[in-house]
Amino acid sequence: MTVHKLVIIGSGPAGWTAAIYAARANLQPVCYIGYYKVDPGPIIPGGQLMLTTEVENYPGFPKGVRGPEMMKLFQEQAEHFGTKVIGEEITRCEFSKNPIEKPHILHTSGGGTVLARTVIIATGATANWLGIPSEMKLATEGGGVSACAVCDGALPPFRNQPLAVIGGGDTAMEEATYLTKFGSVVYVIHRRDSLRASKIMQQRFLSRPNAKVLWNKAVEEVLGENRISGIRLKDTVTGELSTIEVKGMFVAIGHTPATKFLKDSGVELDEDGYIALKHHNSYTNLEGVFAAGDVADKHYRQAVTAAGMGCMAALDAERWLTAKGVD
Amino acid sequence: MTVHKLVIIGSGPAGWTAAIYAARANLQPVCYIGYYKVDPGPIIPGGQLMLTTEVENYPGFPKGVRGPEMMKLFQEQAEHFGTKVIGEEITRCEFSKNPIEKPHILHTSGGGTVLARTVIIATGATANWLGIPSEMKLATEGGGVSACAVCDGALPPFRNQPLAVIGGGDTAMEEATYLTKFGSVVYVIHRRDSLRASKIMQQRFLSRPNAKVLWNKAVEEVLGENRISGIRLKDTVTGELSTIEVKGMFVAIGHTPATKFLKDSGVELDEDGYIALKHHNSYTNLEGVFAAGDVADKHYRQAVTAAGMGCMAALDAERWLTAKGVD
Repeated sequence: MTVHKLVIIGSGPAGWTAAIYAARANLQPVCYIGYYKVDPGPIIPGGQLMLTTEVENYPGFPKGVRGPEMMKLFQEQAEHFGTKVIGEEITRCEFSKNPIEKPHILHTSGGGTVLARTVIIATGATANWLGIPSEMKLATEGGGVSACAVCDGALPPFRNQPLAVIGGGDTAMEEATYLTKFGSVVYVIHRRDSLRASKIMQQRFLSRPNAKVLWNKAVEEVLGENRISGIRLKDTVTGELSTIEVKGMFVAIGHTPATKFLKDSGVELDEDGYIALKHHNSYTNLEGVFAAGDVADKHYRQAVTAAGMGCMAALDAERWLTAKGVD
Repeated sequence: MTVHKLVIIGSGPAGWTAAIYAARANLQPVCYIGYYKVDPGPIIPGGQLMLTTEVENYPGFPKGVRGPEMMKLFQEQAEHFGTKVIGEEITRCEFSKNPIEKPHILHTSGGGTVLARTVIIATGATANWLGIPSEMKLATEGGGVSACAVCDGALPPFRNQPLAVIGGGDTAMEEATYLTKFGSVVYVIHRRDSLRASKIMQQRFLSRPNAKVLWNKAVEEVLGENRISGIRLKDTVTGELSTIEVKGMFVAIGHTPATKFLKDSGVELDEDGYIALKHHNSYTNLEGVFAAGDVADKHYRQAVTAAGMGCMAALDAERWLTAKGVD
């Protein structure tokens, strides 16, 4: 059975960039990209960018580029240099202590196994959503519902408009504070009567003149046909219904890194389930196992940072193989 | 006098990406890009990519993109979001201990000063060259002379051709070993009779069947009109002249980070003169001073890694300012 020099798991900016670099370095990488699965917990090749419309901040595209189009360009580039693309998922990993003597064994969703000297995990993370139909409809169609304020907050339709942030943790406060630069008013909508966020993050938000918290409110429905026009709220204490007008809704109730398939694999995860990296770069705790992109990054989570990490992982894997005498 | 929220120094992938993110975050960044200076020690806006021709490995461009064209796209994107671009250099920095109370003071090549709460240093590094005219002519015109094997080694004109690497350190060995994947034979040309590289790196190279070291040889002239055809060598012991035929020459005698202007500024540099980063990201040892790209990275040195670091620096600067209550 063929032992691949490198298997890449994932097909977002990190995975494709790793593939571009690895293929150019003659590692003949094989990339497992997942497959389309429509409902809930989607595994979508191309990662979170498949859910976005216009990407304004990936450098090199001054006119912007649509997320899916961008991922197509990345994939085309990876394939151009000889990356082999497999439309399956990796469901379980048996990592080897010494992958030069005994390769890593990866199990695929098709029921097969694949052998590899090195593995780059670039499975990303998914934003958590409220899970109501009106929300997903306006998120996937670019209708003003987003899970990333840094990515989308500066877009023209949100400027000087009322905006809402759903959530009560530090990230929600960070996103809400960021949005006060753009919105006429920024509502934080929270189910309870106190925030989980640290005091300092709360203060940062609340010190802005256009900051407002709506306590004990749950989102019942996102209003609007093609673009959000408002949110119907339900009071979690009284049950009372109300409506606020907003032109944007930012869901900030956390992310879930795609690391479930690593259960019992021995890869070290941090307290939030992200892959823990060693030495400032792409090394995990296991020999010949590298990680890149959002699956190992809860701080920046941008297409370009994921791409940079993918490049690092490929160069690290290449140097690791060279050091072990694998041509 | 205006106090800028953010001044970015440098105009390679790191600087422009920082500018794109900072401008979208309403920081109104001002970018000092340096200026064109023709001979020696060029300070060129756009960084090292201005010296390259085809870039194949920056993700998003499956057909490749010319280096200067790519930097034009980056700059256009940064300016589109409101980055102010100044065609001067920063020649000296007086960093403040508390830039919120007393801003950083930067001195410009035009004789002026500029004040800033935060600074991102993205001045890059330059490859060291031999400094002979025939070399520079073929390097700038894409004539088969390069200072980056990872960037250029996989290009079609180098495949199955004799190649030469100039240098004797670990990086030279790494580049030479990498090139043995592509070249028919790879010569390491070294001035002395022993290599500075560590034993293990030497072994890695020498274990390849197509590896060859030419001892006590200095490059007299790079031959070829528009494309390299060979190298004229001079024996450093006997003075004897000889010629080898090669289709590519990779100069690997180190890089110099552009940190001279930071002398006595208090920014911590490492033993090689690169900016020392804190906490795995873009923080330097000084308050409100961040760094990104090759000026702080001697390991990867790729356009996409520099761009990723530029994004991180902008997000770090933005969060730092928000934490200090600067809107």
